[in-house]
Amino acid sequence: MHDNTTARLLITCPDCPGIVASVSNFFYNHGANITALDQHSTDPEGGTFFMRVEFQTPHLDISRPVLSQAFSQAVAERYQMDWEISYASDHKKMVIFVSKYDHVLLELLWRWSRHELPTDISMVISNHGDLKQSVESFGVPFYEIPVSRNNKEDAEKQALEMLAGKTDLIILARYMQILTDRFVEQYENRIINIHHSFLPAFVGADPYRQAYEKGVKLIGATAHYVTAELDKGPIIEQDVNRVSHRYKRDHLRQLGQDIERNVLFRAVKWHLEDRIIVYKNRTIVFV
Amino acid sequence: MHDNTTARLLITCPDCPGIVASVSNFFYNHGANITALDQHSTDPEGGTFFMRVEFQTPHLDISRPVLSQAFSQAVAERYQMDWEISYASDHKKMVIFVSKYDHVLLELLWRWSRHELPTDISMVISNHGDLKQSVESFGVPFYEIPVSRNNKEDAEKQALEMLAGKTDLIILARYMQILTDRFVEQYENRIINIHHSFLPAFVGADPYRQAYEKGVKLIGATAHYVTAELDKGPIIEQDVNRVSHRYKRDHLRQLGQDIERNVLFRAVKWHLEDRIIVYKNRTIVFV
Amino acid sequence: MHDNTTARLLITCPDCPGIVASVSNFFYNHGANITALDQHSTDPEGGTFFMRVEFQTPHLDISRPVLSQAFSQAVAERYQMDWEISYASDHKKMVIFVSKYDHVLLELLWRWSRHELPTDISMVISNHGDLKQSVESFGVPFYEIPVSRNNKEDAEKQALEMLAGKTDLIILARYMQILTDRFVEQYENRIINIHHSFLPAFVGADPYRQAYEKGVKLIGATAHYVTAELDKGPIIEQDVNRVSHRYKRDHLRQLGQDIERNVLFRAVKWHLEDRIIVYKNRTIVFV
Amino acid sequence: MHDNTTARLLITCPDCPGIVASVSNFFYNHGANITALDQHSTDPEGGTFFMRVEFQTPHLDISRPVLSQAFSQAVAERYQMDWEISYASDHKKMVIFVSKYDHVLLELLWRWSRHELPTDISMVISNHGDLKQSVESFGVPFYEIPVSRNNKEDAEKQALEMLAGKTDLIILARYMQILTDRFVEQYENRIINIHHSFLPAFVGADPYRQAYEKGVKLIGATAHYVTAELDKGPIIEQDVNRVSHRYKRDHLRQLGQDIERNVLFRAVKWHLEDRIIVYKNRTIVFV
Repeated sequence: MHDNTTARLLITCPDCPGIVASVSNFFYNHGANITALDQHSTDPEGGTFFMRVEFQTPHLDISRPVLSQAFSQAVAERYQMDWEISYASDHKKMVIFVSKYDHVLLELLWRWSRHELPTDISMVISNHGDLKQSVESFGVPFYEIPVSRNNKEDAEKQALEMLAGKTDLIILARYMQILTDRFVEQYENRIINIHHSFLPAFVGADPYRQAYEKGVKLIGATAHYVTAELDKGPIIEQDVNRVSHRYKRDHLRQLGQDIERNVLFRAVKWHLEDRIIVYKNRTIVFV
Repeated sequence: MHDNTTARLLITCPDCPGIVASVSNFFYNHGANITALDQHSTDPEGGTFFMRVEFQTPHLDISRPVLSQAFSQAVAERYQMDWEISYASDHKKMVIFVSKYDHVLLELLWRWSRHELPTDISMVISNHGDLKQSVESFGVPFYEIPVSRNNKEDAEKQALEMLAGKTDLIILARYMQILTDRFVEQYENRIINIHHSFLPAFVGADPYRQAYEKGVKLIGATAHYVTAELDKGPIIEQDVNRVSHRYKRDHLRQLGQDIERNVLFRAVKWHLEDRIIVYKNRTIVFV
Repeated sequence: MHDNTTARLLITCPDCPGIVASVSNFFYNHGANITALDQHSTDPEGGTFFMRVEFQTPHLDISRPVLSQAFSQAVAERYQMDWEISYASDHKKMVIFVSKYDHVLLELLWRWSRHELPTDISMVISNHGDLKQSVESFGVPFYEIPVSRNNKEDAEKQALEMLAGKTDLIILARYMQILTDRFVEQYENRIINIHHSFLPAFVGADPYRQAYEKGVKLIGATAHYVTAELDKGPIIEQDVNRVSHRYKRDHLRQLGQDIERNVLFRAVKWHLEDRIIVYKNRTIVFV
Repeated sequence: MHDNTTARLLITCPDCPGIVASVSNFFYNHGANITALDQHSTDPEGGTFFMRVEFQTPHLDISRPVLSQAFSQAVAERYQMDWEISYASDHKKMVIFVSKYDHVLLELLWRWSRHELPTDISMVISNHGDLKQSVESFGVPFYEIPVSRNNKEDAEKQALEMLAGKTDLIILARYMQILTDRFVEQYENRIINIHHSFLPAFVGADPYRQAYEKGVKLIGATAHYVTAELDKGPIIEQDVNRVSHRYKRDHLRQLGQDIERNVLFRAVKWHLEDRIIVYKNRTIVFV
């Protein structure tokens, strides 16, 4: 499948008979070949229906804008759909926020440089200058926006201005500042954070210390969309690794960082490939 | 989803545009509501297409036999489909072959008695009498058919007669006799064996000894359909568990048996739920 | 290693130089052969030291009681040790408490009947009569002690009387009553509970519903010693399994029950093999 | 534990009573504090005994060379030990061989630059020039030694000369040339290779193609010491990841590379920390 011919449709709507038939007819009639189809329903009787369709566009009989318009009129309105069509060749623009820890940042940059993340990274923004050289060695612009107790609002304002038009997705790659509600609302379901524990266990600061003191036998990491409530947004991906009484806090942290790298990478990849639908603070992930 | 209203369709055919639309239209037009749909293609250009549809039948406008006939004429012939429709309420009949080890046998009987395996177990057949009481305590008939070097052919003949009309699926639950090609051919893709290693490593006898001598760091088990070639049939499911130098052969065996129980259970469940398509000695498993 | 010759020593004491030498000399001088040795220290400078020694007794030069006395005088007092010597041939007596769910109960009984749990099961106690037949089919006595809002204290008193002299270890195999502090204190670090979530996430009632509503991508189970604080005792073992948006609550429960069976089995086995030391609400598990 | 005070002793000898006492007495008498101790025996009666001791040296009453001499005379000779004492502050020198794939090479360099691998990397040697810049950006010398059908012997000779005095450990990080027996014998148990399958399945070329054609449900990677027989040397570490029919060969390769990175990292770390003993083509790994 070449990226320049692949498109994806995401749908959320009330469940009822006939949706699959309507959607697949529509694409067939316009020369689009369906190469992947996933669906989910919370309840076939009166529930909510979710669908992801991957289709190929080389034999489309109409232009992309006309396709969207036709879909809206012929299918989406009839079924009251929330929907979005994306083209793999239109790379999403991504901005990474980071503080001083570099492990998840470098994993993302490294994957991206190996063409494992289909995105254009517009810039990296940090409240510290430490990682400037690491970032620039990948050919990515780095901007430092210091944040203090007093300038927090100004700092965010500056960041928002820089983001304008340059970002479809924001990654908090162990960014140690809490964003304001105003910021979060502007990018609903488009900010992904990596939390270094298996949520909902160990919300808040220093989860490795919390895990050590609790004596858990597995430690984990969680990638989730950011909402106004700290560490409570819709979970995209989680993973854990086995530990024992021999692990001191430093060792937990080191092992945990490996989990963070993998979990965030998968979450970002799925978002970029249009595999995630958010519904009632949960995610449907079609993989 | 009630089992008495759920049906499933499995399709294999040459890939080409329009299949999803045709199938979903057919079901929509006859009042069947699609509640799950999975598809796979080896290659959208000239490859082979596979599909599993789960649909609900309470509002069907025609009888089940007429539905099959209509599907054949309206859809299947046009796309040269191999296909099969199953109804969840028509439990598949299952026969378990066993020798002296009881761990996978008991796991299956226990799951079945808890309604986790939608099947009717017709009987258990063994070349030894040891497990008669265990089997009968579940209310399942037990038959002993001793096998020796000299009576092998007669023993199989006897088994085949007993199976006639009473089996849709045969499970070799650590059955220590090799079936003849004649037997295997009669039940193509309907005999599931559990092999106590991660195939294709450690084909043949005593894989735990082989694993011990090789010093592997993971041991596994493999559930596969039986073909004429020993331990080479299409793999349905595999799993592994971590071991170390501390594991002696007995300990490997004990841990391995836990893996065997889980792997075989999943494979049998998927077969009973019509989730498996065999293609070119590989399996497509829609889970 | 034959069980009738194997013994184990567990030690907790302030860390300082010379402990390993003293212990190993002592055993060597009395003809005991060390076949396994594990140690752990929270901090070699001023921390706490933990040790497990497995040794063989056929060539002991003194009787078992004299060995204990000699160890106390020659080694333990000098290093201010908490210590205990156990003989594998002295099976610990175990009592299982259960309500209506049978999955973990049956797993334990089944493992025990296959000689995978070195214990004598004195009885099963339940607040319901449902599982009487299942338990008795394993040749284990079953006693029903109904518990209501009004008779709770009497019921516990009755249970304590029945336990007297018949139990070294109590298993709460999905026992749905909360024990009083008085009960718990009598069996400190000798009551193991299985909680059906990855603690400390989802404390309390109906964790599978909580997990479903939170939309976690892994579900788990936790075996822990029971303390006065609900679901907060020292964790012995945990495990998780991957789930997705497709898992409804029933499906989560079914998958979760498989995790519960395995996690509790491992925790009980380790306790019976004297592999666990509790320290500051955490466990050291020597496996 | 500071690296400049940590030392490790590895022992292999015939098993008999008194070894632990002798070793621990020796260290205690010379002011060395044992901070970790692991042992293993193939059979306490007439088997082989293995031991790893980690001890702290700040209060040693003799110099390091004298300690070794004393250990040899007082303990090792009496028990016919193969043994070696290493000091964590004496970093092992490591050389990495690589061809064109960079994923495991970069993982090792990245871990090393983050102080997760206690080693001095002397150089990287490749039969191609492609990765020169990547390697040098880490401050590590890169040497190209082209290998062709005709110059193989000369190329190895050149490599051996460059290695002299500069290497305690050689890593084949997806090096696509087969080393001669002469080369391998010079570095017995000191060459670690990463094979991109779960050995012993899929020995030899293109294991991802083999795995795809076989239809396995898990793919893996294996780190092992190199011996004269291709892909048959003692296994150090293995891991696997779940795949399905949806994974094409490219996707298998990408997922497999992530496993390779982790498996090789762990194997190299354990070797550098003196945790591995090779015995009869198997490894004892004390972790």
